[in-house]
Amino acid sequence: MNINNLETILIKIFKKNGLKADHAKICSDALINAEQVGAYAHGLSRLKMYCDRIRKKLINPNPKIRIKKISQSISSIDANNSIGFVAADIAIKRAIQNAKKTGIGMVAVKNSGHYGLSGYYAEQAVKKNLITMIYTNAPPAVAPFGSSKSLFGTNPICFGTPSGSKIPFILDTSISMINRGLIRFAARNNKKIPKGVALDKFGNPTSNAKKALQGVQLPIASFRGSGLAWMVDILSGVLTGSNHAGKVKDPFDDFSGPQNIGHLFITFKTNLFVKNYKARIKENIKIIKKLPKNKGVKEIVYPGENKYKRLKMNSKKEIKISQIVKKDLEILVK
Amino acid sequence: MNINNLETILIKIFKKNGLKADHAKICSDALINAEQVGAYAHGLSRLKMYCDRIRKKLINPNPKIRIKKISQSISSIDANNSIGFVAADIAIKRAIQNAKKTGIGMVAVKNSGHYGLSGYYAEQAVKKNLITMIYTNAPPAVAPFGSSKSLFGTNPICFGTPSGSKIPFILDTSISMINRGLIRFAARNNKKIPKGVALDKFGNPTSNAKKALQGVQLPIASFRGSGLAWMVDILSGVLTGSNHAGKVKDPFDDFSGPQNIGHLFITFKTNLFVKNYKARIKENIKIIKKLPKNKGVKEIVYPGENKYKRLKMNSKKEIKISQIVKKDLEILVK
Repeated sequence: MNINNLETILIKIFKKNGLKADHAKICSDALINAEQVGAYAHGLSRLKMYCDRIRKKLINPNPKIRIKKISQSISSIDANNSIGFVAADIAIKRAIQNAKKTGIGMVAVKNSGHYGLSGYYAEQAVKKNLITMIYTNAPPAVAPFGSSKSLFGTNPICFGTPSGSKIPFILDTSISMINRGLIRFAARNNKKIPKGVALDKFGNPTSNAKKALQGVQLPIASFRGSGLAWMVDILSGVLTGSNHAGKVKDPFDDFSGPQNIGHLFITFKTNLFVKNYKARIKENIKIIKKLPKNKGVKEIVYPGENKYKRLKMNSKKEIKISQIVKKDLEILVK
Repeated sequence: MNINNLETILIKIFKKNGLKADHAKICSDALINAEQVGAYAHGLSRLKMYCDRIRKKLINPNPKIRIKKISQSISSIDANNSIGFVAADIAIKRAIQNAKKTGIGMVAVKNSGHYGLSGYYAEQAVKKNLITMIYTNAPPAVAPFGSSKSLFGTNPICFGTPSGSKIPFILDTSISMINRGLIRFAARNNKKIPKGVALDKFGNPTSNAKKALQGVQLPIASFRGSGLAWMVDILSGVLTGSNHAGKVKDPFDDFSGPQNIGHLFITFKTNLFVKNYKARIKENIKIIKKLPKNKGVKEIVYPGENKYKRLKMNSKKEIKISQIVKKDLEILVK
């Protein structure tokens, strides 16, 4: 489907669900970006879910988002159960402002929802020549080390920095072996998932996506990954005043209340301590790219590079849409 | 050996090597703490190395450490090739001051050296009721994803927060499958290392510690761990004005110049966004501890809990000292 047509449809759908025009545009942009970078699990496959939650009054289409200034550097945002995209968009813009003013910015968000890709917001900060660290929690998917029950979300750790070239350095990694969204996407499309990334509800390894959704996802590096997930839950949940300790609701399955996800955005200037940051990071990347490669490896890439290339490649092309999403769009736009 | 006796010997050794009394005490405290928490790879096994580097004028025993105020929140420290313990001690104290004043503190250190355990400094901030994030780079040990050559250090990610109880929550995790110090410790004591954590110089898996030191350590979770290591190199090396991209010298093997390691300390108040942080984190930990456990697991512990218990247990006991370290002490104190 042509991008402009898709945008028109998405904005129409969100406006029909009560979002203001500017908020509808923010949501549409984020979903199209996810499709273009190949993060389908954060793209159109979630559209129906967002609309369902709006209709059930679990996402507030017309939120009164309150921004509180804690200091010149620090702000707190109560998103009033807005759709996550809108809360995150306001938050990263405020974090950018704060860092531009004082060198460092920190913005906490509570009463928010799933906002798609952390890297999408990191890009905004990097485009303004800032370094950024972004944390968000998510519904239970990963068992804490030592436990047999899911509690942590796939809780991504995101770090972005200008790279000295036009392709930003954006690390956006979940602490699970695989993103939950990818499992959902596989389940929806009857595809298998790799071995070693999840257990079924009986604790047995499985490559069946539907069984994995009912079971437990495995964290990276056992206690290390579990600790990192716990850190993200504290930074984005405990600290911000949001749900934490497994209380973030699954947006697809749990309609008993709003998600109340929390986010934390930290931003700072690149030239706080050195004058030639761009030259330094450029040299850093250059040295690493020139290292001897493993067999079969064509190029050593930095985090975000592949995603950027997919975005550029796809931004002029039609967006491929699965039959399931096509049906969603047809029903939702009516 | 009795702790007081050990402290007397260590301070004597450091003073003999030209350190001022207060700096000698800082170093002694850090080394004893590492022994007490069971982090032997960061303890007395490094003493001879520090002294060697001081004698070779690669560590400056009497540094002129310059602290520059960038803003009320942000400071930069040129450690003038001091021993890492001293630079880190000054830096975390300044980061604490800055956060107490403005809510958030950030301190970058350049021209420093190996400082032992990040968690040791995190504890200082947590004791002052702050949350902290600490990054430092290290000599090449881990190959970037796609490469066959070591370049990243084991680059720890450290996060500390008050826990609502007397045992602080301190995550201090290297991004390698195993700490390099543990491999060194095993090599020095002719012990084996676990399988699957390192390759020898020919790219073959090995559990021989000496061969592993000549080879490559494996990052956690392949591209994810590699990305996190890269992030730490940027935050602690590129940003601070320190060595990066594999240029941090190995303190044991490379006497061609100072290490010029970089550190980054971020600190912030717990009550920026919520009034009841202590109650919230306490609840978070309580819920997770009550989860059903895997077979054979007695208790779900949070990061730092085991280390704290070892410290308490060992703080009243004699410190066990290996024959090799005993010999080091005897020679160095003369």
